[in-house]
Amino acid sequence: MEIAILLFDRLTALDAVGPYEVLSRLPGAQVRFVAGEPGPMRTENGFLALTADASLDEVPSPEILVVPGGFGARELMGHEPTLDWIRSAHETTKWTTSVCTGSLLLGAAGLLDGLSASTHWLAHDELAATGARPTHERVVRVGKIITAAGVSSGIDMALTLVALEAGDDVSQAIQLGIEYDPQPPFDSGSPQKAPEHIVDLVRRVASFS
Amino acid sequence: MEIAILLFDRLTALDAVGPYEVLSRLPGAQVRFVAGEPGPMRTENGFLALTADASLDEVPSPEILVVPGGFGARELMGHEPTLDWIRSAHETTKWTTSVCTGSLLLGAAGLLDGLSASTHWLAHDELAATGARPTHERVVRVGKIITAAGVSSGIDMALTLVALEAGDDVSQAIQLGIEYDPQPPFDSGSPQKAPEHIVDLVRRVASFS
Repeated sequence: MEIAILLFDRLTALDAVGPYEVLSRLPGAQVRFVAGEPGPMRTENGFLALTADASLDEVPSPEILVVPGGFGARELMGHEPTLDWIRSAHETTKWTTSVCTGSLLLGAAGLLDGLSASTHWLAHDELAATGARPTHERVVRVGKIITAAGVSSGIDMALTLVALEAGDDVSQAIQLGIEYDPQPPFDSGSPQKAPEHIVDLVRRVASFS
Repeated sequence: MEIAILLFDRLTALDAVGPYEVLSRLPGAQVRFVAGEPGPMRTENGFLALTADASLDEVPSPEILVVPGGFGARELMGHEPTLDWIRSAHETTKWTTSVCTGSLLLGAAGLLDGLSASTHWLAHDELAATGARPTHERVVRVGKIITAAGVSSGIDMALTLVALEAGDDVSQAIQLGIEYDPQPPFDSGSPQKAPEHIVDLVRRVASFS
């Protein structure tokens, strides 16, 4: 099972590493971190680099494609070589997935036209501009395309995908393996749940991805 | 606010990246990824490398120390230069933290003697052998030491830390920024909650960290 996770400069690390931590535990998983040019890709604030070991050309036909988000995803929305690779890979994937603003790239590649899709809650207008129909659901599946909401939602997306691909037992075993029994100290993880002044604060800072 | 996240070969990526994604959003955060020798550090299965930009010597006095886990953490339990650095850094930290089997390193450094602490649910015996008193709580704070349970718990740990350091509003804003509104498809994230045959399965495979 070849799994390609796209990397690029100014990505959000957890968008990629959340699904990675789940999907890499699929029996037989071969995860390839790919980028236009192999090498270290820096996160938005520059503090961390994740290494892409392969170029896009080297991984033309992954069975699972994961497109993370970040400010760099927006910058790639007009980058034809990346969009071509996404389109071409999608033709033969079993699953095409995104986390956060990664769905903007799926949209820019023309894969979401008229389809329900998720993204970071602050990026709904941009997603709609690609032709998709944004929803506030955390994980949205339409056929073989699975899009997730902001940043941390990639963990839920990947567990959902594992259940579809390998069954509920495998998904539950991986959940237990990574001890994913979430207990956030607050209940502020969505704009529907967070206090209004917190939503306003985050809109102002908009240091999201 | 200087934040040091220890890296080493055979680490579990999410142990480091979960707290990173939260703590890097603290106002004024300067995150340093440190290792014995700077360079790319591979995860347990080798698919991903995270880059350490600084050596331990270059970051002797971080205000926040984060020690992730992974098979490589066990291998460092007898590595005196790493344990010396942890002990020395701890003397002046505001917060000393661990995720998953990272607490085995805090224990091996002598920081947990007689203290309650958390770790991956499969590593309780090893943690006890360092003199700590393992608990099944997800986030355990004793003074300035905060230890977390397995892998994904680092996100909850970091949000807890942010609330202590910068207040509830900042923690809630970061939670909303990373849209951390967990909705796992199953409720199998702890050995207390998972079906017995899943717990047995994971014990057998023990591909944890």
